[in-house]
Amino acid sequence: MNNDDQTLPVAVVVGVGPGNGQALGARFAREGYSVALLARNREKLLGIAQDMPHAHAYSCDVADPVSVRETFEAIRQELGDVDVLLYNAGSGVFADFDEITPEQFESSWRVNAMGAFLCAKQVVPGMERRGGGSIIFTGATASLRGNVKTAAFAPAKAAQRSLAESMARLLWPKGIHVALMIVDGMVEKPGIDKFMKGRPVEALIDPAALADTAFQLCAQSRRGWSFQVEVRPALENW
Amino acid sequence: MNNDDQTLPVAVVVGVGPGNGQALGARFAREGYSVALLARNREKLLGIAQDMPHAHAYSCDVADPVSVRETFEAIRQELGDVDVLLYNAGSGVFADFDEITPEQFESSWRVNAMGAFLCAKQVVPGMERRGGGSIIFTGATASLRGNVKTAAFAPAKAAQRSLAESMARLLWPKGIHVALMIVDGMVEKPGIDKFMKGRPVEALIDPAALADTAFQLCAQSRRGWSFQVEVRPALENW
Amino acid sequence: MNNDDQTLPVAVVVGVGPGNGQALGARFAREGYSVALLARNREKLLGIAQDMPHAHAYSCDVADPVSVRETFEAIRQELGDVDVLLYNAGSGVFADFDEITPEQFESSWRVNAMGAFLCAKQVVPGMERRGGGSIIFTGATASLRGNVKTAAFAPAKAAQRSLAESMARLLWPKGIHVALMIVDGMVEKPGIDKFMKGRPVEALIDPAALADTAFQLCAQSRRGWSFQVEVRPALENW
Amino acid sequence: MNNDDQTLPVAVVVGVGPGNGQALGARFAREGYSVALLARNREKLLGIAQDMPHAHAYSCDVADPVSVRETFEAIRQELGDVDVLLYNAGSGVFADFDEITPEQFESSWRVNAMGAFLCAKQVVPGMERRGGGSIIFTGATASLRGNVKTAAFAPAKAAQRSLAESMARLLWPKGIHVALMIVDGMVEKPGIDKFMKGRPVEALIDPAALADTAFQLCAQSRRGWSFQVEVRPALENW
Repeated sequence: MNNDDQTLPVAVVVGVGPGNGQALGARFAREGYSVALLARNREKLLGIAQDMPHAHAYSCDVADPVSVRETFEAIRQELGDVDVLLYNAGSGVFADFDEITPEQFESSWRVNAMGAFLCAKQVVPGMERRGGGSIIFTGATASLRGNVKTAAFAPAKAAQRSLAESMARLLWPKGIHVALMIVDGMVEKPGIDKFMKGRPVEALIDPAALADTAFQLCAQSRRGWSFQVEVRPALENW
Repeated sequence: MNNDDQTLPVAVVVGVGPGNGQALGARFAREGYSVALLARNREKLLGIAQDMPHAHAYSCDVADPVSVRETFEAIRQELGDVDVLLYNAGSGVFADFDEITPEQFESSWRVNAMGAFLCAKQVVPGMERRGGGSIIFTGATASLRGNVKTAAFAPAKAAQRSLAESMARLLWPKGIHVALMIVDGMVEKPGIDKFMKGRPVEALIDPAALADTAFQLCAQSRRGWSFQVEVRPALENW
Repeated sequence: MNNDDQTLPVAVVVGVGPGNGQALGARFAREGYSVALLARNREKLLGIAQDMPHAHAYSCDVADPVSVRETFEAIRQELGDVDVLLYNAGSGVFADFDEITPEQFESSWRVNAMGAFLCAKQVVPGMERRGGGSIIFTGATASLRGNVKTAAFAPAKAAQRSLAESMARLLWPKGIHVALMIVDGMVEKPGIDKFMKGRPVEALIDPAALADTAFQLCAQSRRGWSFQVEVRPALENW
Repeated sequence: MNNDDQTLPVAVVVGVGPGNGQALGARFAREGYSVALLARNREKLLGIAQDMPHAHAYSCDVADPVSVRETFEAIRQELGDVDVLLYNAGSGVFADFDEITPEQFESSWRVNAMGAFLCAKQVVPGMERRGGGSIIFTGATASLRGNVKTAAFAPAKAAQRSLAESMARLLWPKGIHVALMIVDGMVEKPGIDKFMKGRPVEALIDPAALADTAFQLCAQSRRGWSFQVEVRPALENW
């Protein structure tokens, strides 16, 4: 690690893979942040981190409270207090009520809602002390609507959205900007072509566009904040 | 148990105390249903059950999958297949993000969302087989909005609402009416007076009114179902 | 007119044709109301009115303030004060922004929103004086969402919904139940078959089911009112 | 007028006074746009326009279709095709259903909804021809909710929101970004202090912050557009 990194503002990206997580990291790195990249599999992170200035890879399982606590302790010690938390973890089974098991219903909630809670708990006290900070959640259409095939994913995302809203009402007056991006569309990433069914690449969300929106949220004036913002391709059918 | 009860349609009320649960049971009992009343504490249930015709008390902890499974197995054996599931469990801590613990965040989700999932899993296969049935969830304002003091309760209720919506989209075409009541106001029950702050009793929800709405939902024509219905006193400020 | 009709409670149905309007009238007639049926074309109304006990046909153009005022004056004089207003007027062009003219945009608003305002203005003072009454608006999916082909209809229905909500917040505490039915689906009526595209009749809204919901709204206890209620076939894709 | 202005991109701000309108104009002027400022009273506009580079004042009454048509014809001739339409007109009476007259109900709709329709009709054909452009509406909390005192304003804003949504679904695929800013709070402008009731100026929306959000919407990548974005002070109670 570069010693200078302790003087930079710190952004943590939770849930990093090729796609939104990588783009979020790259955007904040480019803006002069020291960036902590978190994912379960540290090997995959290393490839992403090595091309990014001031990026640091941390292995973290958001479904495990101990892992979350230890990771954020390491971040605080190695990089300093967290200024921006980008909670981007959010895998999901796509299956209907009849198909999903209690384990899948729980696991989806752990990654999307409980993990968000645990990570936020790690950074909010410091932000309150300093009177500032940003927490941006990556939501989805499922945050707003339960469809047939999102019987596990949508309840988890709805819980996350509700948590974000409750936090925003408490923390905005303390100078902490909590916001939610509604990802409404398919995101471009390696391997996505087999789901595109003839759609052009222009119909996919550009992760860099999502990262721009996240960065602009963090840069908004306190006298004009947004809570919920869609990220949706012009060509999406909604 | 009266032997005749095996020939009656069966309604299960999950989460029975004085207030909404008791009123739901009484309403369906009055309509000729055999009614299973579920709560953790069977002693308290007995007092409620003994004044209700065709009512049967079952001890059940909705946060415990084994307890849920065994209870519904007993109901099926003793009363028959379930025609109506009224999911009314839903305690909640009222505290903000800074105050709640991970345990409280999880426990709220277990009772409001996971318990709803587990109970629904017990009755849906039979309803699908028979091509009919009703599942009514008791929601709250918090199902729709995360406020400062509902940092644990609102995410749990939002998850429940989203689950209900996903289930409705899947199950309505199979003849199963899934619906959600939004309880928006204070409910009249023993001990409520110390929270009333001078409000008249007319400003409180009458549990019998909520039970009427639940029963009417179950009686709606398939060619005009409702999914989400508020139960709110005329005098409520909303 | 039967002289007895002056002693019956009075329901006014605005926008009566075969379908929802006729069913609403029939339902309230059956419940012992004296029913005023309003539509622009009185000839068509007469056929509907003659089979309905205590029904009275009035020609009224809701887009014309003078016509609205004169009609309600006649109703008050002939039948008495209005207890229930069922605002069911609501034709709409189905066209996109590029296709519609300013005249169509305005005309849609006049029938769905301004007409609702004018009719409500005629009955609210009397309801306030008596401390009771019901006003039920027939809304649509378009009340909640602007789609491509509802560029004129949806803004008009959204205005109507917003008016209803503003009225509800003012008038509920005065004992006047303002509510909105969201009609989400195709309604069975003569001539509908050419739009059904192979759908079975069970997939259509039964006007009698909508009328049941309207009547139940009017019968709800003040300690558990609903504001917004969907009327949607079990077989609808939503 | 400077001859160079014909080569600049063109932004039209409808509804310009001190506050949001002025800030929107200034922001786009600073970004190198030729800016047309529209308001009913041209005298007041001149003071605002003279301090703004490339700004041009036009007198326009959005409630008058002829005035709208003539103004946009003049803009096209003098400045060129419109690239960005910022619809910021939107006065409103604050009164409840009992207090407002049909004239106030209509006038509110004319300024907020019909005026938006008429102005959009003037610019969309050109944007479709060129395959690009942005249309940003200034909405309000009332766009989403009808409160007691917004019986005229909220229905008008709801109609505007619905129109914007219908337009977005049609026009996004054609490359035209239609979006809505939800102004949720009091906006700083001359004379606002008498409504502040002890609130600090930090609790007011900074018009420059709103203008930043508007500009960022116009600059978003087509592969990640937003439709609805709040502008709300961190200190607002929501």
